Amino acid sequence: MCNNCDYTIHGRHHHFGWDNSFVPAEKVAPGATLEFECLDSSGGQLKASSTVDDVPLLDFATINPVTGPIFVEGAMPGDALKITINEFKPSGFGWTANIPGFGLLADDFKEPALNIWKYDPATLKPALFGKNGRVPLKPFAGTIGNAPADLGLHSVVPPRRMGGNLDIRDLAAGTVLYLPVEVAGALFSVGDTHAAQGDGEVCGTAIESPMNVVVTLDLVKDARLKMPRFTTPGPVTSHLDRKGYEVTTGIGTDLMDGARAAVSQMVDLLAGRYNMDAVDAYMLCSVCGDLRISEIVDMPNWVVSFYFPRCVFE
Amino acid sequence: MCNNCDYTIHGRHHHFGWDNSFVPAEKVAPGATLEFECLDSSGGQLKASSTVDDVPLLDFATINPVTGPIFVEGAMPGDALKITINEFKPSGFGWTANIPGFGLLADDFKEPALNIWKYDPATLKPALFGKNGRVPLKPFAGTIGNAPADLGLHSVVPPRRMGGNLDIRDLAAGTVLYLPVEVAGALFSVGDTHAAQGDGEVCGTAIESPMNVVVTLDLVKDARLKMPRFTTPGPVTSHLDRKGYEVTTGIGTDLMDGARAAVSQMVDLLAGRYNMDAVDAYMLCSVCGDLRISEIVDMPNWVVSFYFPRCVFE
Repeated sequence: MCNNCDYTIHGRHHHFGWDNSFVPAEKVAPGATLEFECLDSSGGQLKASSTVDDVPLLDFATINPVTGPIFVEGAMPGDALKITINEFKPSGFGWTANIPGFGLLADDFKEPALNIWKYDPATLKPALFGKNGRVPLKPFAGTIGNAPADLGLHSVVPPRRMGGNLDIRDLAAGTVLYLPVEVAGALFSVGDTHAAQGDGEVCGTAIESPMNVVVTLDLVKDARLKMPRFTTPGPVTSHLDRKGYEVTTGIGTDLMDGARAAVSQMVDLLAGRYNMDAVDAYMLCSVCGDLRISEIVDMPNWVVSFYFPRCVFE
Repeated sequence: MCNNCDYTIHGRHHHFGWDNSFVPAEKVAPGATLEFECLDSSGGQLKASSTVDDVPLLDFATINPVTGPIFVEGAMPGDALKITINEFKPSGFGWTANIPGFGLLADDFKEPALNIWKYDPATLKPALFGKNGRVPLKPFAGTIGNAPADLGLHSVVPPRRMGGNLDIRDLAAGTVLYLPVEVAGALFSVGDTHAAQGDGEVCGTAIESPMNVVVTLDLVKDARLKMPRFTTPGPVTSHLDRKGYEVTTGIGTDLMDGARAAVSQMVDLLAGRYNMDAVDAYMLCSVCGDLRISEIVDMPNWVVSFYFPRCVFE
C-alpha cells in the first residue's frame, strides 16, 4: 500500500505487448503519483517451487506482462512523459533462467537452466548465489514505456523509441526518465521488474522478480525527444564496485562479436576459478556484470569489455 | 626519476607501429620494474602553443609513438605478460582534437578542432574546460601491448589480441593487466598516455598528455589467454559518479548505430543546455562520458547508452 499515492494500479490491469487501442486502466492528471503492482516477466509461470523442467514449458504468448496503460491528460505526440521513479517494493522472490534460443551466447548454451533466488525485501542485502556468491541488489523496472503510434499489436520483446523493454539497470529509485509520447494520453505502462541486472543482461534474464513500483508522471510539452533519456541522482555502480572488477575484452571489427568474446571469456574465467557450471557463470554474469564499449574509434578494431564485480566472491 | 625502478626507458627509445623485428630497448628478467618516458600521441607535434590550424598538418606517419620494446627473459608464445601498473607521473599539459575523418561522429564533425588543457600534475584536480566545465582526471596508458607474431610492420591504430591501442580508461594505477605473448621475449611497449578519457573515446582523442609510467613486468607461463584481461583494485568511476549522470540512449538493430545515436543526442543536450559549440560538446563527451551496452538480448533491438557525469557542470 502506498501512503502518498493518488492511484494504485492493480496487477490484474496488465497487458501483453503494446497496442494504442488498449483501454486505459486509469486517466490521471500530470503530477499524479501511482503505485503499480508489477508481475514478474513470466507472468507467474515461474514460482519459488519451479525447477529447470518448467523452463521449456514457458508460454511466450503470455510473457512480460506490463501493468497499465495510464492515460495522462494533456499528453500529445511530440511531448515527453517525465517519469520520476520514486520507490520499489520488492517481493523477496526472483528467478534467472537460460532460455534456449535467447541470450547473447545462445549458440553456446542450448540447454535450459534456472536459478531461484530468495532475498530479503526489507534490507536488500546481497542475494546468495550457490555457496559463495553474493549478488548486490538494485531493483528497477525492465519494461517501462508508452504506446507506439503504429496501429495494431506489437511484441513486448524489443524496446522502441517510446521505451518498452529497455532493460536499463539504472532506471532505479531516484532516476528521472523522459520518454517520447507518440499518442494522445501517452498510454504509459510498466513491469518486468528486476531485483538486479548488469549492463547487457547477457543471458537474457535478470533476477526477475515481482514488485510494486511507485512513479510520478508529468509532462514536458513539445520536448521533441528522439529517444529515451534519463538522469540519475548519484553513482550508478556504488553497490557493485567497492572491491573493483575482473575484466575481459573482445577486440575486433564487430561490436556484437566483441561483446560475445568478452562475455565468453568471463564465463570461462569464473567457471574455472570458482568451480561452477558454465551456465551458472553465464547467468551470474547476466545479473551483475557490465558490458562497456572501451573504444569505438581505433579503426578498424573496437574494444568491448565485460566487467565482473569482485565483491561477489571476495 | 624513479626511486624503486630497475630501469628507465627514455623517450628516445620509441617506435612507430608494431614489428617483431624491432631491436629491444632493454632485456629484463621477470619481476623487473621499469619507468617509461612516454610521448603524447602526436609525438610532440602538438604543443601548449598549438592552434586549430595545426591539426590538419599532423603527420600520421609519426603519430602514436610507443616507448620500448622490452624483451622479457623467458617469455614465450602461449604465456601471458603480467603488467602491474604502478604509477603515472603526468606532465600537466594535454590536448584533445577533432581530427577530420576520425571519430565516432566523423560524418557530422568534418572540421578540425583543438582544445589545449593545462592541469596540476601534483594534485590532479579536475581540469578546466571552457568557463564552467571541470573534468575529473585519471591518467592511464592508451597504448600498451606486445609485438604480434605476424611478420612486418603493423599500424599502431587498431588494437589487437596482444594489446596495443586498447584505449581502455581503466588501465590506470593499481590495475593488473594480462596480455597474450606471441613472440619470444614478448617485446612490450607502452605510450599514448591520457590524463582522462571516457569509455568509447568517442571523438577519437582523449586528454592526450605526455607522462611517465612505472610498471612491473612478470610472466604467467602457459596462460593461453585469448585476449587481454585485467583486474582493477577498486571502483573505476568514483572520480566521475558522485553527482550521477545525464544519460541518452540509442535503440535499434545495430550497436554502432545505437552508439552514434546516443552520443549525438548527448552532444545536442550539452550544446543546448550549456551554450557551447557542438564540437566542444563532442570533445567533452570523449574525455569523460561513457558508452555502455544496456541490453543486447531483446531481439532485434539493442540499447546503447551514453553516460555523461553531472559533476562536470554541477
